[in-house]
Amino acid sequence: MILVTPNDAVFDDGIELDSGKRFAPISVRYETYGTLDWSGSNAVLIVHAFSGDAHAAGYHTVEDRYPGWWNEMIGPGKPFDTNRYFVICSNVLGGCQGTTGPGSIDPATGAPYALTFPVITINDMVKVQKRLIDYLGINRLLAVAGGSMGGMQALEWAVSYPESIASAIVLASTSRLTAQGIAFDAVGRNAITSDPRWNHGNYYDGESPARGLAIARMLGHITYLSDESMGEKFGRKLQERAAYGFDFADQFAVESYLEYQGGKFVDRFDANSYIYLTKAMDYFDISERFGTLEAAFAQGADRYLVISFSSDWLYPPYQSKEMVFAMMKAGKDASYAELTSPFGHDSFLLETEQQGRMIESFLETTYAKA
Amino acid sequence: MILVTPNDAVFDDGIELDSGKRFAPISVRYETYGTLDWSGSNAVLIVHAFSGDAHAAGYHTVEDRYPGWWNEMIGPGKPFDTNRYFVICSNVLGGCQGTTGPGSIDPATGAPYALTFPVITINDMVKVQKRLIDYLGINRLLAVAGGSMGGMQALEWAVSYPESIASAIVLASTSRLTAQGIAFDAVGRNAITSDPRWNHGNYYDGESPARGLAIARMLGHITYLSDESMGEKFGRKLQERAAYGFDFADQFAVESYLEYQGGKFVDRFDANSYIYLTKAMDYFDISERFGTLEAAFAQGADRYLVISFSSDWLYPPYQSKEMVFAMMKAGKDASYAELTSPFGHDSFLLETEQQGRMIESFLETTYAKA
Repeated sequence: MILVTPNDAVFDDGIELDSGKRFAPISVRYETYGTLDWSGSNAVLIVHAFSGDAHAAGYHTVEDRYPGWWNEMIGPGKPFDTNRYFVICSNVLGGCQGTTGPGSIDPATGAPYALTFPVITINDMVKVQKRLIDYLGINRLLAVAGGSMGGMQALEWAVSYPESIASAIVLASTSRLTAQGIAFDAVGRNAITSDPRWNHGNYYDGESPARGLAIARMLGHITYLSDESMGEKFGRKLQERAAYGFDFADQFAVESYLEYQGGKFVDRFDANSYIYLTKAMDYFDISERFGTLEAAFAQGADRYLVISFSSDWLYPPYQSKEMVFAMMKAGKDASYAELTSPFGHDSFLLETEQQGRMIESFLETTYAKA
Repeated sequence: MILVTPNDAVFDDGIELDSGKRFAPISVRYETYGTLDWSGSNAVLIVHAFSGDAHAAGYHTVEDRYPGWWNEMIGPGKPFDTNRYFVICSNVLGGCQGTTGPGSIDPATGAPYALTFPVITINDMVKVQKRLIDYLGINRLLAVAGGSMGGMQALEWAVSYPESIASAIVLASTSRLTAQGIAFDAVGRNAITSDPRWNHGNYYDGESPARGLAIARMLGHITYLSDESMGEKFGRKLQERAAYGFDFADQFAVESYLEYQGGKFVDRFDANSYIYLTKAMDYFDISERFGTLEAAFAQGADRYLVISFSSDWLYPPYQSKEMVFAMMKAGKDASYAELTSPFGHDSFLLETEQQGRMIESFLETTYAKA
């Protein structure tokens, strides 16, 4: 059992945002696992998905019931082998789990930012991570690795700081959010902003828009699973009855599951962070600053591992293939695998064995070459 | 231009619902196009999808800007050729466009039923349609045809009243709602019931839960379209700006489209009907009363035309294939086509040419055999 203590780094001068504004100060919550070697060449940055946090592996206390969100992948002898690599994970800018976000106190007013928090991009999150990596004294990361919104950050690292990373590992992700992705985000945001308790983002001293946030999360969960896995897990089973009662107390197992997930989420997530982070994803299009995907990668990092999952319909395999073709056309060293899995988008959290072996050998080769 | 006048039929004794309760009285809004022939053998019942109504074709007045929802398919010389067939379409039980539903006045109280309206099934809708067909003096329908929730009704007709129909035409539909389908319905219902204006269904004398209903509809629209068609139609275009403004006034074209659709929907649809009709779909499993799909069809109607659409991910082609295999195993005359279309579930409303030709020849053959 790895015991880990979260750390905070504060950058008083902040960063210049993509919007052109300077935003400061920024406090970053992060955790590290393993030891940085003498040459500083064994550091791997894990970048988390939409609802993730800095607690990627291990336990905070011996009483903890649950480890970090990617504990299967990070630890001694695991794919991100902490006997070999120094692994870092930080909460993203705009989040609500330790790093500055809309729920943080604005030192200028003494009150939470709420909607005075600036609109940010995936690139802004990465700028903050770069500050953290500099602060930790690391010149060049062996890899930046993440799934979903984490994959977007890994791609952004690759094209924004190519000299600072040897490789990017991009799982179940996309090089740009599609119209369908934007549409799902918009419905989730509407569910939150239509909750009267949202109150234009000013709810921190009262009741939070828990219903709206729960509905957004329920919808999110549908997109993280697949038709197939929901069919296998829940099918048409009723939750508490053997036969239809023909009243609204009839609830199918899948409804009950979604309500449970929605209810659990509101205890750990801030509704305004939901709004800001989905907006950042909507803006995400890695080709945008460079004209084409190929041009973006041409000036980007040298090595990539891209993994997609057959049943992921949120960021389907065709979107990974598109980026891999562009990497190859740009003359980069790109490995790609479409793994067969029934678990939909969540596969990158669940299919740890298949992707684990690929990541392990990719990191080894990268380390040998670096 | 066909001018058509809606009719109402009232059944004072109502029907016995699947729940075991008798529900009365029931008023049914319906329209007819064409002329019933002397033998009464040329009647086709069109059954509408979730948000459809009895107005399937033609115009109500010469000033009407829009014709009925399936006008491309129904009329003189069209696939449902009103020079040959007598075409009927009625609003479903539980609906809000003329047939008795939760927004109708309960004669016992003089107030709208709201949540005292009984929980109904697809089969209950079909029982009401059977009453209408009897009332119109038709012994046997040449076909019952519909897409989506209409396809469910066509299937229900085929297994519940096999002597009363010569064939069923089932488009973009399913023989049972999957866990994913139930999940989408549940999120939509939650959006409505979480709107404080819903007030446990009692909003008819005040403001309606328009925000909740609009959000439910926005989500519905995503499931009716496809990743591909949304990408082609909207892509990542901004609605009113040329470049990102990095504020919440930035809106992508797809967001604006969904909000427009959501807003338009609340003017014509009742939130409680949304709840009751989705619940009826959740209950839908045609195999349930018979043990297996094959057993259901074995005792069902003789002829079927089933059409699915390649990009329909709400009721994907595999669900149509499953029912066609069962029809064939049961020794029935089943024709099946998976049509290639980018338009997702909505294809049955849009791809009128391809499906039109198939329906036209299927009806001709059925008529010749009947």
